[in-house]
Amino acid sequence: MAFRYRRRVEFAETDQAGIAHFSVFFRYMEEAEHALWRAAGLSIAPQGQAGWARVAAGFDFKAPLRFEDECDIFVDIAETSRRKVRYAFTFKHGDRVIGSGTMTTVPVNKSADGILTGYDVPADVLERLRAQLS
Amino acid sequence: MAFRYRRRVEFAETDQAGIAHFSVFFRYMEEAEHALWRAAGLSIAPQGQAGWARVAAGFDFKAPLRFEDECDIFVDIAETSRRKVRYAFTFKHGDRVIGSGTMTTVPVNKSADGILTGYDVPADVLERLRAQLS
Amino acid sequence: MAFRYRRRVEFAETDQAGIAHFSVFFRYMEEAEHALWRAAGLSIAPQGQAGWARVAAGFDFKAPLRFEDECDIFVDIAETSRRKVRYAFTFKHGDRVIGSGTMTTVPVNKSADGILTGYDVPADVLERLRAQLS
Amino acid sequence: MAFRYRRRVEFAETDQAGIAHFSVFFRYMEEAEHALWRAAGLSIAPQGQAGWARVAAGFDFKAPLRFEDECDIFVDIAETSRRKVRYAFTFKHGDRVIGSGTMTTVPVNKSADGILTGYDVPADVLERLRAQLS
Repeated sequence: MAFRYRRRVEFAETDQAGIAHFSVFFRYMEEAEHALWRAAGLSIAPQGQAGWARVAAGFDFKAPLRFEDECDIFVDIAETSRRKVRYAFTFKHGDRVIGSGTMTTVPVNKSADGILTGYDVPADVLERLRAQLS
Repeated sequence: MAFRYRRRVEFAETDQAGIAHFSVFFRYMEEAEHALWRAAGLSIAPQGQAGWARVAAGFDFKAPLRFEDECDIFVDIAETSRRKVRYAFTFKHGDRVIGSGTMTTVPVNKSADGILTGYDVPADVLERLRAQLS
Repeated sequence: MAFRYRRRVEFAETDQAGIAHFSVFFRYMEEAEHALWRAAGLSIAPQGQAGWARVAAGFDFKAPLRFEDECDIFVDIAETSRRKVRYAFTFKHGDRVIGSGTMTTVPVNKSADGILTGYDVPADVLERLRAQLS
Repeated sequence: MAFRYRRRVEFAETDQAGIAHFSVFFRYMEEAEHALWRAAGLSIAPQGQAGWARVAAGFDFKAPLRFEDECDIFVDIAETSRRKVRYAFTFKHGDRVIGSGTMTTVPVNKSADGILTGYDVPADVLERLRAQLS
């Protein structure tokens, strides 16, 4: 069972074609990911820490979203490895599928000089996220 | 030979990790596409027309961009079919590869009631875009 | 009594200083305005219509907002004239005042060739908005 | 004589009313400010430093900007005090005035725990900025 995040399309997110701009869907995926973290009692980027970096992101667009549409974003963990988590997302407006996407993320620390370095996905974090998906 | 679009990272595009937010890369791909159109003497969305809708977009992130970095975005047409154009993008900061992405777009008209309908990729448009790539 | 809209700061809205970018506050004011309209049973921009244009907007920043902060945005109607509505906003994070702003808007229609033209503020709209503020 | 920054309206910056969203003008003001700094041989936020925080920002909108419009943004320093710099901006599209705005900024340092603290406006910075305005 996927985690659900509901998001309303704001006016500033529409473009002159009268629909939510395609880049907005990537922000929505990230918001849904962070909502999942909060539901698990976690924050993905506690103050002063770098958080998780994206190594890949993609989206297939099936139908547009319009101003004030409320979109249900379903988040699932599609795959994990030692240093990566890949999320899968399905966007629905009511029963209509709006599209689906994936986002592959890696945990990173930031040194004092701003360099980002990866580390192993913490097992307890994964466990807590997964507890929200079942 | 790909078309080149140069873009500087603006402050508002950075996030608290100190790098350009990943969603910004999708905006940059679109800006590069539109710059290619202008170079070809075209506008992708003349006032009052809908333009081209995205059916898919993806990006693989290799290295971060930071505030005021100037990024070279190389645009190529990777594939075309009757109703689609797929662009391929490579982002470089100097000699360093920042990442690569694709964007698949379809030409759409917008009816008076806001419905978007696809039509065939105009041959002369493709020809003019390709002339910028060789 | 002002209308309250609650908004959480999203990661993409932070900048490299680790706080919500100042331009985001203008988006929040607009979101709060639109939430007030929805609470009044209205939509500020029904599909196919232009909506309301801003003629002035300003904000005084007192304290920063950070990732995942939940901000209460209080909306009030500060002033109206035949063709204008001026909203006043106060942002609070818990008891702390984050800042305050104003936004002056005018109702506009959009002609087929894209020209925006103002018209008189509809009395029934004002009445319904005000009913949410008392 | 003001410093000039030229900016083209990108597609993602338009909204469903077919014009550049009003929040975008605040980003443009900041971009113009940062371009002035670069012209003066400075960076407003060297990697690892906080930069300048906004304490006030406002804009009066006279005419809309549309997709691909090239806007000239004229930056001037309207007022300075020990801890503040207030910039004034005029936006023009060709000869047409699009609007004007102001932005008041204060230099801030960021401590290890993320607290922002103001300091005096450096005299040499002001001098170098002003050299670009005359």
